[in-house]
Amino acid sequence: MRISELAATTGVTIPTLKYYLREGLLHPGATESATRATYDDSHVERVRLVRTLVDVGRLSIDRVREVVSALEHPPATRHELLGTAHDVLRGPEQAAHDETVGGIAPEALEQLASLGSPPCSDSPAARQLGLALTAATTAGWPIETETLRVWATAMRSVAERDVRAELGAVSPADALRYAVIGNVLTDPVVIALRRVAQEQVSVEVVTG
Amino acid sequence: MRISELAATTGVTIPTLKYYLREGLLHPGATESATRATYDDSHVERVRLVRTLVDVGRLSIDRVREVVSALEHPPATRHELLGTAHDVLRGPEQAAHDETVGGIAPEALEQLASLGSPPCSDSPAARQLGLALTAATTAGWPIETETLRVWATAMRSVAERDVRAELGAVSPADALRYAVIGNVLTDPVVIALRRVAQEQVSVEVVTG
Repeated sequence: MRISELAATTGVTIPTLKYYLREGLLHPGATESATRATYDDSHVERVRLVRTLVDVGRLSIDRVREVVSALEHPPATRHELLGTAHDVLRGPEQAAHDETVGGIAPEALEQLASLGSPPCSDSPAARQLGLALTAATTAGWPIETETLRVWATAMRSVAERDVRAELGAVSPADALRYAVIGNVLTDPVVIALRRVAQEQVSVEVVTG
Repeated sequence: MRISELAATTGVTIPTLKYYLREGLLHPGATESATRATYDDSHVERVRLVRTLVDVGRLSIDRVREVVSALEHPPATRHELLGTAHDVLRGPEQAAHDETVGGIAPEALEQLASLGSPPCSDSPAARQLGLALTAATTAGWPIETETLRVWATAMRSVAERDVRAELGAVSPADALRYAVIGNVLTDPVVIALRRVAQEQVSVEVVTG
């Protein structure tokens, strides 16, 4: 298809598509002549991926480029793959911020250990958790270990829906896409479900 | 205490404190003379609140002002109070974004209904959930109703720790502070727990 058809199919304007091409977010089409290229379904899929990361995930263009690059050269093992996905999702602002706040507090390390050792204690996810616990404690809002345990159990059942056996069969690139897009799109759903549940519990506590 | 002591106690510089005073984020101290004012524990607490909202919650100054204003004039009922907290937490960028994406898709409304009616179907939380479900569907990533049900059950147990009976006894302003700060500080913990659990489940799926 021509670029005009790609625009019509994806709902993204031609100037934006050209910007994605220049920025390396979208792979070049097959060149027909000096001024004409054709695009296929892989371009439609890529444009949708970029839009989701930008619109829903609020990822910067630099971070989208990292995702695209990781998809083109996916890590070999599933574990590295989740680490890559989680690292990308943390975002550059978050990463820069984490650098400034210093390390993980000793209390947070103890709490991490109390959850049972994560498979890789220096994974992006474990570090993100340690920093989030540290930030809460620093703000005078330490999280009780019992609360953390209840939350961990709850998020375990969320994760069991996220990571399913059948995903072992897909290609590394598809698994990475699943991990990144799945989290980008569903983190807001999980947080919104928390808010709705707070309203429900609150009404019950008051009227019950 | 003088402003220099307020700075030393909170770790926030005097120019930043003066900025908070000008912006109405910090209430004025008691005036001793034209050039001298004294501050008390309420100022220390307010500065810590503002820092948490800015540093951890990444709220804009305008949004922090909304929180402060809501704390000074808290809604009368607990239900309105949670609505106010959730509305503030949604953030102006999110609110502006939600306006542009149009309404909640019919499929998302059906899924909302399948969760059991939330206490107030047009609450900020229910609307946030509907929009998050719509965004996932639009991106070609519809969430299965069974998955949503499992997640809702999990977030219900998170919310039961969030909203506890003893909170009914605190003042509306304290309850609002609890709802805003609690969510700002612990949303990142909950999401990080999801990532850690994904790594744990992933290892078990591969090796189990």
